[in-house]
Amino acid sequence: MAADPIGEQYDVEQIRALKYRYLRHLDLKQWEEFAEVFVPEATGAYAGLDFGDRDALVSYMRENMGPGLISMHHVHHPEITIGVDGDPDRARGTWYLEDKVLVPEYDFVLEGAAFYDDVYVRTADGWRVAHTGYRRTYEVSYTMSSIQNYKLKLGTAYDGRARV
Amino acid sequence: MAADPIGEQYDVEQIRALKYRYLRHLDLKQWEEFAEVFVPEATGAYAGLDFGDRDALVSYMRENMGPGLISMHHVHHPEITIGVDGDPDRARGTWYLEDKVLVPEYDFVLEGAAFYDDVYVRTADGWRVAHTGYRRTYEVSYTMSSIQNYKLKLGTAYDGRARV
Amino acid sequence: MAADPIGEQYDVEQIRALKYRYLRHLDLKQWEEFAEVFVPEATGAYAGLDFGDRDALVSYMRENMGPGLISMHHVHHPEITIGVDGDPDRARGTWYLEDKVLVPEYDFVLEGAAFYDDVYVRTADGWRVAHTGYRRTYEVSYTMSSIQNYKLKLGTAYDGRARV
Repeated sequence: MAADPIGEQYDVEQIRALKYRYLRHLDLKQWEEFAEVFVPEATGAYAGLDFGDRDALVSYMRENMGPGLISMHHVHHPEITIGVDGDPDRARGTWYLEDKVLVPEYDFVLEGAAFYDDVYVRTADGWRVAHTGYRRTYEVSYTMSSIQNYKLKLGTAYDGRARV
Repeated sequence: MAADPIGEQYDVEQIRALKYRYLRHLDLKQWEEFAEVFVPEATGAYAGLDFGDRDALVSYMRENMGPGLISMHHVHHPEITIGVDGDPDRARGTWYLEDKVLVPEYDFVLEGAAFYDDVYVRTADGWRVAHTGYRRTYEVSYTMSSIQNYKLKLGTAYDGRARV
Repeated sequence: MAADPIGEQYDVEQIRALKYRYLRHLDLKQWEEFAEVFVPEATGAYAGLDFGDRDALVSYMRENMGPGLISMHHVHHPEITIGVDGDPDRARGTWYLEDKVLVPEYDFVLEGAAFYDDVYVRTADGWRVAHTGYRRTYEVSYTMSSIQNYKLKLGTAYDGRARV
């Protein structure tokens, strides 16, 4: 057991909550709140899509995951380690992602899975993301119109143009 | 950190387990056990489908999610806060749902996602659901027959009429 | 609350991490690491597919879940109880599975859900799986070619023959 199991468990819970906020703000297109989960120098590496700092990462998401795209990002199986290379204020986290992206205008659906490897850093305001990235096991894509009777409805939690 | 981090962590774990029981009993159609996760005055609000008390909610589920319907409700990303408006015996919880519903008789499949906002209350018998509800980001539906070679098998965990 | 809530919470977290390693190594086809999550006498019972010890279970997975098959196993809703029949070094765990299997050579996709009932045992090297098994609620299968424009890409996390 850790020297301070209560403190460590608390840190692990805080990091999990950080990741959940990150994905909640992403899927709800709340870009200001999304930006706040990262430190300014945070880097990203999503299966070949790389970002050198927070501004680049957030700008890309804001531009490419706008109202015309519906996304679902669910992360599972957290394996969080507090302390990296002897630094107690850094942590690593592995997660197992399932994601789904729908783009009605392009008749496009994507479904996939990936493993995240993240680095988190403790700041005066709590834990923040210092690096995030994933490597895919697989992704599948198809056209909505290839499934007869395929119907998509947007809900009230969907940002901006909710219908049902 | 909370004044009593051990007690708070314990409460959070109890509330998570309550939610897992709720969805396990729902998907296994165990209505008596399902009813026990709620206080009698519990309310529900599922994307426009509202219930004023436990009896109304449980009766609806029992009638509409019977043997002809197969459901999968998975909740992720728990963000639980113990204490609401200064009351330490109430808690709030946000979850991110992925659900799937299959109704062979109507050649119907539904897949969707939503955010739950729940209220829990501490009782002499442990935490119970005082309010549950979700708002959808999206839902997709299609007919099983629109996918050639689509085959559905029921398993032994499925209540009532299991086949494989 | 448990007599030793800190120790119990620590055990629960260790068992969750064990289950996540089990499924990570399974989906990444890392068979030596996969074997290490079990005690030698571990048994398995997957919806009618039974194994009498670790060697039988691991050999089967190695042979049947090789490079031609892509799998995703996500477990949710852990309900872990430390102590079984008065033995504090055994634990039980229920999980709710969502899985997906793709076999391009056979034009085959499977998607399903199940409830796991596991038994874990505390060893000198930490918690290990003593029994694992699940019962399905349902499973669906279809052919990839029945969905027009269905495209599968393998990622760099996929073991052996990654493409994208």
